[in-house]
Amino acid sequence: MIDFESFKAGMGAREQRRTLLQRDGRPFFVLISQQFLREDIELLCDTATAIRRLDRHVEGRDFLRSILRGYRIMNLFAQPSTRTAESFIAAADKLGASTRQVSDLRTSSFSKGESVEDAVRTLSSFFDAIVTRHQEDDFAARAAWALSSTGRAIPVISAGCGKSQHVTQSLLDIYTLRYSFADRDGVDGKDVVIIGDVARNRAARSLAYLLARFDRPRIHFVSPDAFTPDDALLRYLEAHEVETTLHSALGPLLRAQGDQIDAIYVTRLQQEWDRGNNGIPDAGDRGSAEDFVLKPEYRPLLRSDCVLMHPLPRVNELPAEWEDHPGFMVWRQVRNGMWIRAAVFASVFGSDGEIRSRAARLRLL
Amino acid sequence: MIDFESFKAGMGAREQRRTLLQRDGRPFFVLISQQFLREDIELLCDTATAIRRLDRHVEGRDFLRSILRGYRIMNLFAQPSTRTAESFIAAADKLGASTRQVSDLRTSSFSKGESVEDAVRTLSSFFDAIVTRHQEDDFAARAAWALSSTGRAIPVISAGCGKSQHVTQSLLDIYTLRYSFADRDGVDGKDVVIIGDVARNRAARSLAYLLARFDRPRIHFVSPDAFTPDDALLRYLEAHEVETTLHSALGPLLRAQGDQIDAIYVTRLQQEWDRGNNGIPDAGDRGSAEDFVLKPEYRPLLRSDCVLMHPLPRVNELPAEWEDHPGFMVWRQVRNGMWIRAAVFASVFGSDGEIRSRAARLRLL
Amino acid sequence: MIDFESFKAGMGAREQRRTLLQRDGRPFFVLISQQFLREDIELLCDTATAIRRLDRHVEGRDFLRSILRGYRIMNLFAQPSTRTAESFIAAADKLGASTRQVSDLRTSSFSKGESVEDAVRTLSSFFDAIVTRHQEDDFAARAAWALSSTGRAIPVISAGCGKSQHVTQSLLDIYTLRYSFADRDGVDGKDVVIIGDVARNRAARSLAYLLARFDRPRIHFVSPDAFTPDDALLRYLEAHEVETTLHSALGPLLRAQGDQIDAIYVTRLQQEWDRGNNGIPDAGDRGSAEDFVLKPEYRPLLRSDCVLMHPLPRVNELPAEWEDHPGFMVWRQVRNGMWIRAAVFASVFGSDGEIRSRAARLRLL
Repeated sequence: MIDFESFKAGMGAREQRRTLLQRDGRPFFVLISQQFLREDIELLCDTATAIRRLDRHVEGRDFLRSILRGYRIMNLFAQPSTRTAESFIAAADKLGASTRQVSDLRTSSFSKGESVEDAVRTLSSFFDAIVTRHQEDDFAARAAWALSSTGRAIPVISAGCGKSQHVTQSLLDIYTLRYSFADRDGVDGKDVVIIGDVARNRAARSLAYLLARFDRPRIHFVSPDAFTPDDALLRYLEAHEVETTLHSALGPLLRAQGDQIDAIYVTRLQQEWDRGNNGIPDAGDRGSAEDFVLKPEYRPLLRSDCVLMHPLPRVNELPAEWEDHPGFMVWRQVRNGMWIRAAVFASVFGSDGEIRSRAARLRLL
Repeated sequence: MIDFESFKAGMGAREQRRTLLQRDGRPFFVLISQQFLREDIELLCDTATAIRRLDRHVEGRDFLRSILRGYRIMNLFAQPSTRTAESFIAAADKLGASTRQVSDLRTSSFSKGESVEDAVRTLSSFFDAIVTRHQEDDFAARAAWALSSTGRAIPVISAGCGKSQHVTQSLLDIYTLRYSFADRDGVDGKDVVIIGDVARNRAARSLAYLLARFDRPRIHFVSPDAFTPDDALLRYLEAHEVETTLHSALGPLLRAQGDQIDAIYVTRLQQEWDRGNNGIPDAGDRGSAEDFVLKPEYRPLLRSDCVLMHPLPRVNELPAEWEDHPGFMVWRQVRNGMWIRAAVFASVFGSDGEIRSRAARLRLL
Repeated sequence: MIDFESFKAGMGAREQRRTLLQRDGRPFFVLISQQFLREDIELLCDTATAIRRLDRHVEGRDFLRSILRGYRIMNLFAQPSTRTAESFIAAADKLGASTRQVSDLRTSSFSKGESVEDAVRTLSSFFDAIVTRHQEDDFAARAAWALSSTGRAIPVISAGCGKSQHVTQSLLDIYTLRYSFADRDGVDGKDVVIIGDVARNRAARSLAYLLARFDRPRIHFVSPDAFTPDDALLRYLEAHEVETTLHSALGPLLRAQGDQIDAIYVTRLQQEWDRGNNGIPDAGDRGSAEDFVLKPEYRPLLRSDCVLMHPLPRVNELPAEWEDHPGFMVWRQVRNGMWIRAAVFASVFGSDGEIRSRAARLRLL
């Protein structure tokens, strides 16, 4: 068994990554965007579409609920997140799996002096997979590492880890982009604006890593000076031939090139990290400064087919006035989160092929 | 789309109420007692009886669990209430729906500065109905209003809102009265005593509103001077030809007219509202003053068929000595809560007719 | 109806115990180890094995999930315990029952001044069984007593009560010992070391009580002077012809008789009780003093077939170095907890015979 530092290093190395995170040719630990190749992404999106369409009819729903019948999934959420937790639970439910949620680690045996390894291993005795959200960047990876050494390893899916990555959020975002660009040759070669504290926004970072799997997209980052994209991300994008530009305000960018922009990904500033409370937000959020707000007055600068997205929750940065814009995809993102997470579960348990086949036979794919 | 103030005003107006709260001839938003006509109430009670009787046999239980199979219901409970929450969850479970409970809004994205509208709309993406309890009088109505403007509205059922109404509690109370008076011509024309802080007791208020749908009942309110029935309620009762009398102590009323009383509805004084903690009770409850206690010594003043009810929890106002009285219906109320809530779910989703038909075919109705 | 003191006294008297706790020849209230006779234990273990083996195949899993379909089980856990709670929930899930967890009694109606009797009786309206963990020694017994007087009693299963007993933990421990000694004539006549604060460790106490049902085992207690086994336990063991020895340090015992020891049951010192916080552990746990630690250096003193067990969570008392010892059964205990609790549910609801028959027909028993 390798130690945790080697496991982490292996996750960062292209050659070792898939050995550590895949089993039997499918994802086993779902931790970072970089682990997904272009063809993995396409298959996941097709699976999500199959599930979404099968869910429309009683027979399809019954079929879906048979897929993971008897499977048990643990949501281990140390950071509060009703939205993401419920999205995973709904996804599991659609496939017939039962879920349990542990939100407050203070009520768990961690508080009795137990190690993370013991706690995770104990939980793995009762469950077939663990979905975890944690304020520490490495928690999900550590859980995966601890389990991979036991005789009875189970999949670990990260639902957001510290400031590092939020891999399933980026999968739903790509799925939404792919859907939105279905008539425009897909995601390849598109101009995407990403607004926010990129250096510490795990959704933004994961999306950028995932965009690198597509053919020559351009990413325009708009971020406060203190939170511009980190070097590791920029190097990765460069290595994957993604053209990037950095901006410190949205207005000038849109005024100069608004009509070339295909999609704008707005995010909330991550002020909870400033308060030293472990990334747990509170009601004191004041919203974004105006340089990072998509103001209603920018509307004439954008094409009507420009896609507008936000991972939610939002404060002031994407005002309600945009809701009737033809490209406003925020509510679709929420639904897509459920579909792509169901696709991730199906893929992890090796049932995605069966789902796509059924959908194809019914001419739903 | 109308604004919220117009929506609220419409709920108060007989002509608009059903347009706003009903869809396809059945309740879609279940918010206030006044929205139910006499025939609605009778149908709901018949549905509850059908469910109760079908549940007694394995085949009936399997049939019931097929009714809402694959449906997902969210219990959004900002005010703590194990009893009511579990009653709704058991009701959903009986019909095969799955439920999720969110109790602590601090762990939800509300705390990140999100609007109620965004939060409710997000949850609506994962669920087929929302059941909500909140310390604010208007919360459920506001959620219904927010959803009614979206392309994907889902039903909202109030499980108690502030000091205003607790509509499903009153439905179970009426169901219990109807059962108790089955051999005495039903609820019409009965004398009902309602004891408690009526002005701020949502269970008492909702029951009074619902009694107004029956033929000339008489209501005797016994309440502290500070919490006598509010004018809106009294006007409504007068308009519906309900005879009401007001009393400030129970003893004199029972000594004068005890043998005419058909039912006594005892409630706990709502002292939690006095402590400025948003209607969240604590252990400091001292119970009711003696004028509002149904003392064991009153027993000779009542008929043996007088019905005794309480919405629970109780402190001192309905002592254990009454439990062997033939009219003691408190535990039956608890069970009936589960049946009537299942009937509400069935009605909201348009499955109540199928349930009654099945029960009728099996000669259970 | 008898009062609670008589109920408690009856639980302590061999002749009355089964009348109070059994119904229709099977356990109805599962509260203390002493209520199980040798043949009860053997049947429970056989049922657990049947469930464990049926669960390995799709058909077996589907059969198991039909056993308690439609049953609803309440986990009423006033003391935090993710591990035990999830074990019970997984067990119920395996048999198709649905479960609900109430962890924080402050959010329940207890806080409104309600009696335990009312609260438990209300919950019993929505559920088919209650599993309860509480910091008070008598809570489960009190709940059982309160329900036994109602017309609609439901089973109560203790999941750990104060410092007194943890009956299902001892059942899983015996099941693990029986499995481990399958080729060595079973549990009869074995030498078992029990390390810990025996006087206030409910797992250790319940195991000792249960061992007394076997033929002449020997128990070697190793405990701090302040928490040696209580007189009631020692008298019971003597009456059942269990040879006991008392020790204040592990090292000398193992050096003198290590090669005679068949099993070592290590437990965490129960320091949470020292802090006056109602048995709720916190992160301040410092672990055990060295006299109560199974040090890696003792390894040469033990036989390679010596069984090593721990109820978890552990701090320092059973170091990770032991994990590759052939007798290390800790992770098996965790899985066995799920199987034996499923067997308890099946037994309480009278479905255990059907399960064993099915397994026997498939040659799994």
